Amino acid sequence: MLDAAKEISKTLGEDSISFDEDVIEHHGRSDWSTANTAERPVAVVYPKTTDEVSAIAKICDKYAVPMVPFGAGSSVEGNFSSPYSGICIDFVHMDKIVAFHPEDMDVVVQPGVNWMDLNKEIAHAGLFVPLDPSPTAMVGGMVSTNCSGTNAMRYGTMKDWVVNLTVVLADGSVIKTRRRPRKTSAGYNLTTFFVGAEGTLGIITEVTLKLAPIPQDTSVAVVSFPSIRDAASAASSIMRSGIQLAAVELMDDLQMQVLNKHGSAAVRKRKWDEDPTLFLKFSGTTDAIKSDIKRVSQIIKSHNAGEFHFAKTKQDELDLWAGRKESLFTMVATKPENTILWTTDVAVPLSRMAELIDLSKADGAKLGIFASVVGHVGDGNFHLAMFYNPDDAKQKAAVAKVVHDMTNRALEMEGTVSGEHAIGIGKKDCLVDELGHDAIDFMRTLKKAADPKWLLNPGKIFNVPGKD
Amino acid sequence: MLDAAKEISKTLGEDSISFDEDVIEHHGRSDWSTANTAERPVAVVYPKTTDEVSAIAKICDKYAVPMVPFGAGSSVEGNFSSPYSGICIDFVHMDKIVAFHPEDMDVVVQPGVNWMDLNKEIAHAGLFVPLDPSPTAMVGGMVSTNCSGTNAMRYGTMKDWVVNLTVVLADGSVIKTRRRPRKTSAGYNLTTFFVGAEGTLGIITEVTLKLAPIPQDTSVAVVSFPSIRDAASAASSIMRSGIQLAAVELMDDLQMQVLNKHGSAAVRKRKWDEDPTLFLKFSGTTDAIKSDIKRVSQIIKSHNAGEFHFAKTKQDELDLWAGRKESLFTMVATKPENTILWTTDVAVPLSRMAELIDLSKADGAKLGIFASVVGHVGDGNFHLAMFYNPDDAKQKAAVAKVVHDMTNRALEMEGTVSGEHAIGIGKKDCLVDELGHDAIDFMRTLKKAADPKWLLNPGKIFNVPGKD
Repeated sequence: MLDAAKEISKTLGEDSISFDEDVIEHHGRSDWSTANTAERPVAVVYPKTTDEVSAIAKICDKYAVPMVPFGAGSSVEGNFSSPYSGICIDFVHMDKIVAFHPEDMDVVVQPGVNWMDLNKEIAHAGLFVPLDPSPTAMVGGMVSTNCSGTNAMRYGTMKDWVVNLTVVLADGSVIKTRRRPRKTSAGYNLTTFFVGAEGTLGIITEVTLKLAPIPQDTSVAVVSFPSIRDAASAASSIMRSGIQLAAVELMDDLQMQVLNKHGSAAVRKRKWDEDPTLFLKFSGTTDAIKSDIKRVSQIIKSHNAGEFHFAKTKQDELDLWAGRKESLFTMVATKPENTILWTTDVAVPLSRMAELIDLSKADGAKLGIFASVVGHVGDGNFHLAMFYNPDDAKQKAAVAKVVHDMTNRALEMEGTVSGEHAIGIGKKDCLVDELGHDAIDFMRTLKKAADPKWLLNPGKIFNVPGKD
Repeated sequence: MLDAAKEISKTLGEDSISFDEDVIEHHGRSDWSTANTAERPVAVVYPKTTDEVSAIAKICDKYAVPMVPFGAGSSVEGNFSSPYSGICIDFVHMDKIVAFHPEDMDVVVQPGVNWMDLNKEIAHAGLFVPLDPSPTAMVGGMVSTNCSGTNAMRYGTMKDWVVNLTVVLADGSVIKTRRRPRKTSAGYNLTTFFVGAEGTLGIITEVTLKLAPIPQDTSVAVVSFPSIRDAASAASSIMRSGIQLAAVELMDDLQMQVLNKHGSAAVRKRKWDEDPTLFLKFSGTTDAIKSDIKRVSQIIKSHNAGEFHFAKTKQDELDLWAGRKESLFTMVATKPENTILWTTDVAVPLSRMAELIDLSKADGAKLGIFASVVGHVGDGNFHLAMFYNPDDAKQKAAVAKVVHDMTNRALEMEGTVSGEHAIGIGKKDCLVDELGHDAIDFMRTLKKAADPKWLLNPGKIFNVPGKD
């Protein structure tokens, strides 16, 4: 491995590679994740171009050394860990907008571009990338985990916004999956083949993204319900009505308590009801939003809804939505001493979500720990977050069982073990439960064809043959 | 091959297989396509279940016999032809709705279900499959060609509506690509791996489709422009505005002439302007549509738009849209004697479409034949249709050159050689031009991994190694 690193250093220049222990440690594990390994990469390399990534891959292929792509490091399932050591490829220097085509409503970027920076850069043209993952996320990681977020209900997930990818294959050869049409049915869909593959099939070095017009107007409304089931069934009725909201988000009673106690000044301007609450984001033309708000407020009446608060000013709107946006960080700020966070997500058919949330929250509550739910209700996708003491083996096992039971129930309900965080090393066993050995074997057949030496981010999604 | 057919007959029963020459002929070629082969399948088999398809695949695997799936036979690039003979698998008896989940907004169907029948069947629940291909199309073929149609601008293409697939692999084993979540990022996206693969990677035997709520209301408007470029740039401005139309369709001057002369009684109620014309379909809530119509009529003023006709009654709406919907059939009814139709499609970035349509129409006009354009303008996708005399070798070559030049230009403009008809045998060479040998080789690597004996619909998308 060190021979490979040395050859990379010789080829790309000494400045392009780091053997620093702190750097390696930072690239090897995550505080946000419960899925960490003991192994670390031998070096971190910083390419600037597709050609340099290709050169790295050729050297790694020659020495049979694992290659692990690294973006912002914000993924939570150990997606960028290095269980077989190898070379970590950090895309921080590949952060350029290559070409912006406002008339075609697309943009070509390198994988190290942060999505929020990108949206600021192109806002003048009235366009944006309508995803909403972690604020720190970079495009390459967003593609590789098929990320989404609160906007997914209206705009779909990352796979729906990728026009083409430039990919360095395992042997260092380079392909482009498409040219730049918004629509095509020409040949295999290699684009979505790489989206969500976590870098196990190829290394993404350039991405063309479809863009959406920034809506003329937006608005936000908040409404609480006596139970999670009422809230979820209200959300379902809204979806069935055909009213196209930008987002329908659910926060449970615990999350609302956290807002009242620890929210930012803007959030604590109001006293929030400490009940299960829906956050609704409207977007479109100003007239359409008015009409949508009226219709939604009628629909939810039959679901025991409380008072319907909708933003009357732009400041109102920001303050209301801040309640939803701050939830993760506010919650982390309340973390009890000596505990860490276990956060995970599942997605199930819409009709089953309320039941699953109820059961999972009850299981968490039985442990006497903080166990809370935030949900992308429009997608049947929700996150469970729990604080536990990692040194308390019994508590850790109990928390693991809550997660295990939740994923098992999600599968019984025909759901998925990962709605938007991918598999990494954290959910490999669950994926076998989800899809069965034959489907996993077929994935491995494709993996082996694309990467015969099994060097691309090995040990993610499924085990390396003969190991684990 | 006959041994395989006999074993299938023995296993599934004599009623499940046909050796009738007319039946074989009907399954071997298409009047709608210029991409036909001389070869025919040796038999047509009619399975009723996934297990029967699996049994067929095991027998074909054993005798190394090609398997060619057949749906409605409405594809136009020779997608269901049998260039290496083999067994044709007709899904006409697999036409059941397996499960309908209105609360989850999805439906599970067999591949032989016709999409219009399906939409009638589920309309009572206020839901529909928002694709719009040939009225005869069946779900299996729709998935395998990644079809779309006039609704794609708003609702996307087939790949966006498939939740999961049950697939019989080359050796007869059966996998399911997902359970039933609306959203997932768990493992490789095997669903889109099979969508658009034209049955070359596996045989689809069950499909779960996401459903959309039927819009509360719809409306239609029609407006003509002095030139194709004006019409296309008006469409582009509408898209950039963020107004979410259901469809923006373009018909050229020739198509409008055809409507005036040969349209149905409903269509000929009005005298159409014989200029390039946009057909706009609005959908959503009644209030939103009113507001959208107002905004669109303002936007198009700056693009030399003629009078803006919008439907004032439901009958108006049907009559106006009938103009667009009848175009293909009306045009075919005007086919000059001794000619046949060559129809093909490409898609390019939005900003280049007007130029490409202009150039392609001019090329066709130079031949003195009917050469007309209908476009899904919102997607940069359009169809060129020409009538030519197949016995006139010189004219046939000239028409082929027009198509060839159009696809080449589409590629220079970073477009695709097939927007919604897939590749079949008709566009294999173009696909190499589009993606390059390395990308095609990667597709073939995946094909070989999935189908080592190369038995699944061989000769489609790319050539069989060592042949052609």
